[in-house]
Amino acid sequence: MSRKNIVILGSSGSIGEAALEVARRHKDRLRVVGLSVRCNTKALARQVEEFRPSAVVVGCDTDACRVTQKVRRWGGRVLRGREGLCRLAAEENVDTVLIAIVGSEAIFPLRAALRARKTVALANKESVVMGGELLMREARRYGARIVPIDSEQSAIFQCLEGHRVADVERVYLTASGGSLYGATKRALRCVSLKRVLAHPRWKMGPKITVDSATLMNKGLEVIEARHLFGLPLEKIGVVIHRQALVHSMVAFCDGSILAQMGATDMKLPIQYALSYPERWADGRLHLDPARCGALTFEEPDTRRFPCLDLAYEAARRGGSLPAVMNAANEVAVGAYLEGRLRFGDIPRVIGKVLAGNWPRTVSRIEEVFEADTAARRSADRWARILKKRRAFR
Amino acid sequence: MSRKNIVILGSSGSIGEAALEVARRHKDRLRVVGLSVRCNTKALARQVEEFRPSAVVVGCDTDACRVTQKVRRWGGRVLRGREGLCRLAAEENVDTVLIAIVGSEAIFPLRAALRARKTVALANKESVVMGGELLMREARRYGARIVPIDSEQSAIFQCLEGHRVADVERVYLTASGGSLYGATKRALRCVSLKRVLAHPRWKMGPKITVDSATLMNKGLEVIEARHLFGLPLEKIGVVIHRQALVHSMVAFCDGSILAQMGATDMKLPIQYALSYPERWADGRLHLDPARCGALTFEEPDTRRFPCLDLAYEAARRGGSLPAVMNAANEVAVGAYLEGRLRFGDIPRVIGKVLAGNWPRTVSRIEEVFEADTAARRSADRWARILKKRRAFR
Repeated sequence: MSRKNIVILGSSGSIGEAALEVARRHKDRLRVVGLSVRCNTKALARQVEEFRPSAVVVGCDTDACRVTQKVRRWGGRVLRGREGLCRLAAEENVDTVLIAIVGSEAIFPLRAALRARKTVALANKESVVMGGELLMREARRYGARIVPIDSEQSAIFQCLEGHRVADVERVYLTASGGSLYGATKRALRCVSLKRVLAHPRWKMGPKITVDSATLMNKGLEVIEARHLFGLPLEKIGVVIHRQALVHSMVAFCDGSILAQMGATDMKLPIQYALSYPERWADGRLHLDPARCGALTFEEPDTRRFPCLDLAYEAARRGGSLPAVMNAANEVAVGAYLEGRLRFGDIPRVIGKVLAGNWPRTVSRIEEVFEADTAARRSADRWARILKKRRAFR
Repeated sequence: MSRKNIVILGSSGSIGEAALEVARRHKDRLRVVGLSVRCNTKALARQVEEFRPSAVVVGCDTDACRVTQKVRRWGGRVLRGREGLCRLAAEENVDTVLIAIVGSEAIFPLRAALRARKTVALANKESVVMGGELLMREARRYGARIVPIDSEQSAIFQCLEGHRVADVERVYLTASGGSLYGATKRALRCVSLKRVLAHPRWKMGPKITVDSATLMNKGLEVIEARHLFGLPLEKIGVVIHRQALVHSMVAFCDGSILAQMGATDMKLPIQYALSYPERWADGRLHLDPARCGALTFEEPDTRRFPCLDLAYEAARRGGSLPAVMNAANEVAVGAYLEGRLRFGDIPRVIGKVLAGNWPRTVSRIEEVFEADTAARRSADRWARILKKRRAFR
């Protein structure tokens, strides 16, 4: 059996570490040939020590020194920054590029990997939300394949295998409902950060946990699914599924629905993306349907959680709007995490920013980034205005 | 668009009528070129009037006269009996043969259709339970395909499309639990026929409704699934799912589970079998996950419902044993429906018959039928013995 050569970009994050655990469990099938971190050189050194990749990417020269000092007798190359990420993603001996970098920066190595005809195991949402149309065009042109890692997109991907996208009537992205499910509108306005960060099902970083509570995470996934599967927006729906065991569903035109279920463990979709088109046995992740308890599905309450509608609106308007919305959300969530905004202000800031006059068509990634930068400035301004208004009350 | 020519064997039963309703809804895609009934010539005449098939099969000459008298200006042929069924199933202009005949007689037209390389839409359980190994060998040899109509098997078929059978860890056949779910062991012993026939989800004939209450229906499906999908018996499990919306599930070796859901309506799997590999839009059968209520799954109680274990035992022993078990069940259920046996006697009769000395290998369909005949005799004898014993008490 020949091993797949994989590169893991963003290897010190939770997805990156889980991917390395998968590589550890399937040593006979996966060889880690490249790693990257933004600044956690300590984790990187440990990973290099274990996996001996042929190259790594770090942020700057100082970081590079740190890594080479820490790892003894390792002859691999140390690349730097965005250029390094793109070079590693396109390296000739690489089969699969797993992109677990957080934020829009992932667009560049993603594009490089697609152009080099790699299989991309994609955990990064922002890249597809911001540049979905442009990136999917590149994927088609170069015949590269994206296998999503996000559990919802992985579920849809698995449900669509062997079936025709043209036969899809509706896709149901499942949402656990996050930490604030069932909270009253009044309570939502100024809910504490501690409560927001106590996600009932998934252990994730603070940004995505807040996105999960506002339902913006699902909004981003709606936009993502649209591009990844080439589905019209009207065919993408969201259902609240508190148990987080059904990871998404696909309803076909004849009334048949396929659902993908599994343990609430990111290693499952990560391994699937790395093993695809195969599946590798892993007894540790098995789920017994008879021990699941009752599974429930319900409509999301978009009046209490307006972010989902904002995402649909941005998607419908298209062009730079999804990028603008994503940027505004990042700024607003950042301000909330720093205590500068209330929870209820997050959709307010996004709504204000979206109301601006933004380009309705984009033809290059650079234009998307211009809109992103401008939207961040606008969101920052609105966050300050809202804070000031509150101070006057 | 070219139309598919279909033959419906057993067109006056509930599956046959539902199949004709599908043909009616998709006139532009399906042309009914053949029909058959066992004795309901009145229904057949009505169907011939509407669909104008080029040939029909009836039981005997008297039936043939009745049909030709009833239908005016129809130039189709009227064939007779088993030979007629086999000829119609193998007719050159036929694309798909839908077999909705009840009982073991279906084996003959099924074999004829497979040998003629037809696609078979199969609703008949007995044929596969009795002659599964032999029939699947024929299907492989001639490159014919069976698309199951049974909602559980159709669910597994759909979940497996695009995935490898070798990656299957376990298949979960869902069982609604029938009309006696939750009944105590004491109540089960002499439960009334009326209560048994009140199935909570599916409207079906009396024999299959009793099989559903004893869980033997699921036992037969376990054996069926084994042959249809080439799965080892240990990989086929049963879960009770009261809502009858998830029609079955496939768990893969990596921990991922695919489930097929849909309205509780046989038209859905019937249409799928006829449209395969396409899917045809039918808005009438759509299911909204947010309006399903809670979905539950639990282990079946094989102490209270021992028929399921009997079926596994027969399957494990192989050879003629599945046919023997099926025959014994048919006789026992028949005696129960006629009031000659109590509900609790059904598994008892089957157990007694299975304890006999039956051939462990079969190489021809005829041997299977010999075992079937002998098993019926044995079951009859045991039914009489049990009845007599009770009279003495």
